Amino acid sequence: MHFSDHIKWNNDGLVPVITQEFNTKQVLTLAWMNKEALQLTMETGHAVYWSRSRQKIWHKGEQSGNQQQIKSIRSDCDNDAILIEVIQKGGIACHTGRHHCFYQQLIDGQWQTTEPVLKDPKEIYK
Amino acid sequence: MHFSDHIKWNNDGLVPVITQEFNTKQVLTLAWMNKEALQLTMETGHAVYWSRSRQKIWHKGEQSGNQQQIKSIRSDCDNDAILIEVIQKGGIACHTGRHHCFYQQLIDGQWQTTEPVLKDPKEIYK
Repeated sequence: MHFSDHIKWNNDGLVPVITQEFNTKQVLTLAWMNKEALQLTMETGHAVYWSRSRQKIWHKGEQSGNQQQIKSIRSDCDNDAILIEVIQKGGIACHTGRHHCFYQQLIDGQWQTTEPVLKDPKEIYK
Repeated sequence: MHFSDHIKWNNDGLVPVITQEFNTKQVLTLAWMNKEALQLTMETGHAVYWSRSRQKIWHKGEQSGNQQQIKSIRSDCDNDAILIEVIQKGGIACHTGRHHCFYQQLIDGQWQTTEPVLKDPKEIYK
């Protein structure tokens, strides 16, 4: 069996992928892969996703340079979610210039921004 | 604005929820919430999900006793994913009796089970 046949792809042919930083264990992003993205991730050793907004294969860091080197790939009990551990190049995973995407926290019924912008996105995406 | 209006619910009215163990930073599960589940999570202080297989509200631990006490609730840059930190009662988050659900690792093109069963599911779901 091909390793991608193990995954239960959803109706759009995608699977949600949790990306966790290897060193800090911080959850950086939730993104999506299709079969081709998983295959390319395996082949290149760097995270490759399916961009739902742009509807195309997305080599993470292709514009920003902030690539994610793969340390492990795991699937869950239902085989409908993937967890990868990565080394985050440049220390910035989020397109807003923050370390990770989960920078809004629900505190007393209000969403509050709890993480600083480390680099101006205009500088990242020149 | 009600805090749930901040979330971009998908076409099924759901959002993917990453659940991370507060103490160990291990990713335990990927599950889903609808508005009601998020509201109940806020109100009860324990994780409440939407079960896609059973199509109903799922108070985590309602059968097993393995509840998840909420430590934080975060959303990502696109507001279409949630990350919660929890204290996992009983040390078992997975219905297979394992600590967490991501117990299969892709190694040399093969999915291998890397986590032990801590408790027989027959004992958990009596």
